[in-house]
Amino acid sequence: MNTSPFPSPEQRRADRAAKRHAVLAAAVAMFNERGFHATSLDDVAASLGISKPTIYHYLGNKDQVLLECLTMGLQQLIAAADAAHATPGRGLDRLQAFLRRYAEVNMDAFGACVIRTPEEALSPDSADRLRAMKREIDAAMRELIAEGMADGSIAPADPTLLAFTLAGALNWPARWYDPAGRFDAPGVAAQMVDILTAGIAPR
Amino acid sequence: MNTSPFPSPEQRRADRAAKRHAVLAAAVAMFNERGFHATSLDDVAASLGISKPTIYHYLGNKDQVLLECLTMGLQQLIAAADAAHATPGRGLDRLQAFLRRYAEVNMDAFGACVIRTPEEALSPDSADRLRAMKREIDAAMRELIAEGMADGSIAPADPTLLAFTLAGALNWPARWYDPAGRFDAPGVAAQMVDILTAGIAPR
Repeated sequence: MNTSPFPSPEQRRADRAAKRHAVLAAAVAMFNERGFHATSLDDVAASLGISKPTIYHYLGNKDQVLLECLTMGLQQLIAAADAAHATPGRGLDRLQAFLRRYAEVNMDAFGACVIRTPEEALSPDSADRLRAMKREIDAAMRELIAEGMADGSIAPADPTLLAFTLAGALNWPARWYDPAGRFDAPGVAAQMVDILTAGIAPR
Repeated sequence: MNTSPFPSPEQRRADRAAKRHAVLAAAVAMFNERGFHATSLDDVAASLGISKPTIYHYLGNKDQVLLECLTMGLQQLIAAADAAHATPGRGLDRLQAFLRRYAEVNMDAFGACVIRTPEEALSPDSADRLRAMKREIDAAMRELIAEGMADGSIAPADPTLLAFTLAGALNWPARWYDPAGRFDAPGVAAQMVDILTAGIAPR
């Protein structure tokens, strides 16, 4: 342990990252609870016992804070898509692994913020950047579906409508999931993916 | 045909209803396209070639216009639930009939508005009224699921998670469905309900 009173560059970087993360976590909780429009950075700052200029210093204005929150949510989904592609097995197995993680991210505060924030809340530039990330995630899901249809592990259907059906079902927990409720996120994700895989009709 | 220059009470009622509906249709299109916050009643009035006081006369302020749009969407869903309950057949058959109509309503402008409007946009009183209507619809879906599980036409699962999975999948078209696109609403509804009923795994 470094006992010098002068922080090393690594400590300064870690400290800066921890502060940025604390601001983002406080902001995303308020965005999700009150909505973006009804949240002020003054309230976010007050909840952390800091001043608004401190938030400006670490992250920027309210639009930039939102963009960073949404980017964190979307990056988790892109990581899930990358992991699914690297997983061995049939297309259906890889799709299921991706969908479970996809659902879990949507029950995380940053993932939920992606679903809950209407595009109108963003500046045109930010909206463009986020749309590109969302397209990447949609493309990954459709690719896994195409692989599964090609190897016979997924039943034939319109791939676009299938992707929308899966995404819609698994986006929805962003609106209703309550971490303090009776369900845990991985359990919800696994059960929803089971329902979507096997369908509701009896077997 | 009544050729008198003095309208009958029926004509006056029909005229009033037509004007209210024209205002609501123009307003819901703007709410869906721009978001509630970014829409002004001045823009709605201008799109109809009327004045804002005319909107106040027929419907009230912006909150009241939104509440009326949302009520129209929710009433279509309540009507679908009532119709499903009156349909003969197994629970699964009735649930499928309800789900197809549920999806179609969410692709209608008033139904889409229900999904796209965050609860934060509403006054606490309006939010309470709408929540009561949404609870009625959720309860109807869970009741159809319970009937299907009881008669063996629906596979056992957690009824709440099953309802959320179905509702989420079928709410999502409110965000992506484009009437000018390559899909028609009844076709989307039927295919999505087929996917949800049979699942994605091959049979």
